[in-house]
Amino acid sequence: MPELRKDIITDRWVIIATERARRPQEYVRPPDVADKSNCPFCAGQESMTPPELWAVRDAGGANQPGWKVRVVPNKFPALRVEGEMNREGEGIYDRMNGIGTHEVIVETPDHHCALEDQPVPAIGLSLRACKERMLDLLRDERFRYILVFKNVGRSAGASLTHSHCQLIATPVTPLRIKEKLVGALEYFGRKERSVFQDILRQEQRDGRRVVFENDGFLVFCPFAARFPFELCILPKRQAADYHAIANEEILQLADALKVTLGKLNRALNQPQYNLILHTAPSRASHRRRDYWGTIDLDFRWHVEILPRLTLTAGFEWGTGFFINPTSPEDAAAFLREKSV
Amino acid sequence: MPELRKDIITDRWVIIATERARRPQEYVRPPDVADKSNCPFCAGQESMTPPELWAVRDAGGANQPGWKVRVVPNKFPALRVEGEMNREGEGIYDRMNGIGTHEVIVETPDHHCALEDQPVPAIGLSLRACKERMLDLLRDERFRYILVFKNVGRSAGASLTHSHCQLIATPVTPLRIKEKLVGALEYFGRKERSVFQDILRQEQRDGRRVVFENDGFLVFCPFAARFPFELCILPKRQAADYHAIANEEILQLADALKVTLGKLNRALNQPQYNLILHTAPSRASHRRRDYWGTIDLDFRWHVEILPRLTLTAGFEWGTGFFINPTSPEDAAAFLREKSV
Repeated sequence: MPELRKDIITDRWVIIATERARRPQEYVRPPDVADKSNCPFCAGQESMTPPELWAVRDAGGANQPGWKVRVVPNKFPALRVEGEMNREGEGIYDRMNGIGTHEVIVETPDHHCALEDQPVPAIGLSLRACKERMLDLLRDERFRYILVFKNVGRSAGASLTHSHCQLIATPVTPLRIKEKLVGALEYFGRKERSVFQDILRQEQRDGRRVVFENDGFLVFCPFAARFPFELCILPKRQAADYHAIANEEILQLADALKVTLGKLNRALNQPQYNLILHTAPSRASHRRRDYWGTIDLDFRWHVEILPRLTLTAGFEWGTGFFINPTSPEDAAAFLREKSV
Repeated sequence: MPELRKDIITDRWVIIATERARRPQEYVRPPDVADKSNCPFCAGQESMTPPELWAVRDAGGANQPGWKVRVVPNKFPALRVEGEMNREGEGIYDRMNGIGTHEVIVETPDHHCALEDQPVPAIGLSLRACKERMLDLLRDERFRYILVFKNVGRSAGASLTHSHCQLIATPVTPLRIKEKLVGALEYFGRKERSVFQDILRQEQRDGRRVVFENDGFLVFCPFAARFPFELCILPKRQAADYHAIANEEILQLADALKVTLGKLNRALNQPQYNLILHTAPSRASHRRRDYWGTIDLDFRWHVEILPRLTLTAGFEWGTGFFINPTSPEDAAAFLREKSV
């Protein structure tokens, strides 16, 4: 019997239809062939990107080799930094200029090294880069939201194979983030407890969906997972803003990412995936929003990992209602037993 | 300068980033190679499907050749008809059994004939099949929503090339439908006008996004289109429920579909796409919902066509905030000039 499960934060229902299941092995794909020639993210080819915004380096000057992590503007940005918002109506419709930023965080100078192949402190440098860029961009009151995401593999939307993630600052808070903010606020209003803390406790107690745990983070397959092997990395310490992450937590998150991505690679042979960081919106530009009341108590930043193993079809696009052929309990059990 | 546009019904923002544009020709893909052997939807192979639920035929008995349109249960259903809902909690979470139906509407007995290649009255038979199946299924109070959708091409999630669409009845109203219902209700509350009627009038007056129009329907690229060449087919007559469609409107919708899909084929060389019918939820099971107050005035059924030309990446999955590299005005102009 297929099962319907409701996401407790967004109220989104999901169909867990394991009778349509494929075994984890059936999702396995052959790895991409990487092409190093003319890669703009490789050490020595810094002139192929716009000038860098931030870097950690042992040697060399700006835009020279010697860096370990490097942040550059996206050469083909979805949004532009310069200009006015120009919010205006067009008949009944609303529009504004596409003001924002679109940056790339190059996670390693080595073309063939994936994020998770690096030592924990090196992974931590990329996580610190995200924090530092957020702290800088949050000073610009035009930006309401900063999204960090990582696309790995062509089906996940990556056009370059060299390990990197992206950061986009937007002048509006996206709808899917608002759903979570409102869901967390309403839950707190009813229960006077954080839904994220309740999820953390229930997942720890139940254990069937847990993949990994360290002092700072719990990694689990969500109860209402939309996709096979969907994962959530949830911090144990309450904090609405990712940019409030402590140095110790950066290393714990780097450890959780290294283990989790390593397990996914072992289980599914380097699957294509999207990784998304959900943090609270910028406060400066949102002072009047209702969901600020209890945000530091009710919302918690977290990471979603969405392996791209299945195609999204008309049903999902038409309804936002997903059919997941692998139960999160099965996915978690399969990942737990993979050693890394 | 990229532009941000807000969908007036759902409040979803979209980035129209034409500087990342590809020309329509660059989306063109080679057509799929169709394989007729062992196709369960071909005339003469009726025994390969579960027994039919509904059909229009010139000759033959049930599950025999001679039909023109045939509705059968999906052999691998996402939801099951039999059983109890068993709504229950699991700690803080909610679950229920996956009760529903999953049917396939085979639009032609001819393996090589696309929906739009048929004459208008034949297309109308498939549209009537949707109506008849809805009227039957709406008598079951367990079903809250009936979604009709069509996947064309492998990237759009189709596993069979023989022309067909699908119908899924679900025991919950999906979130994306609720967003539209609530958006339409709130707009009506403020304006005492239907947002769909306002969109119809503005698109007709403006004209830049209109692709086709007949007595019953307007076909246009939505102002805040998420995808290149996204289309909406909106009826001119106010009706919340697709199943209230009149016979004359069925032929007008068939005409609009034939022309629109023909133009897409000419413009983009048989693109892969998803087609989705958004109708009001079942009333029987929703009597107490707030959005019933003015639904017959504020909500209008409509069709979305979503060509699958771009990949959906982490940014879109993470935010529900889409980057569309082709403006709806350019897409509409390109489609208007294609003759069919």
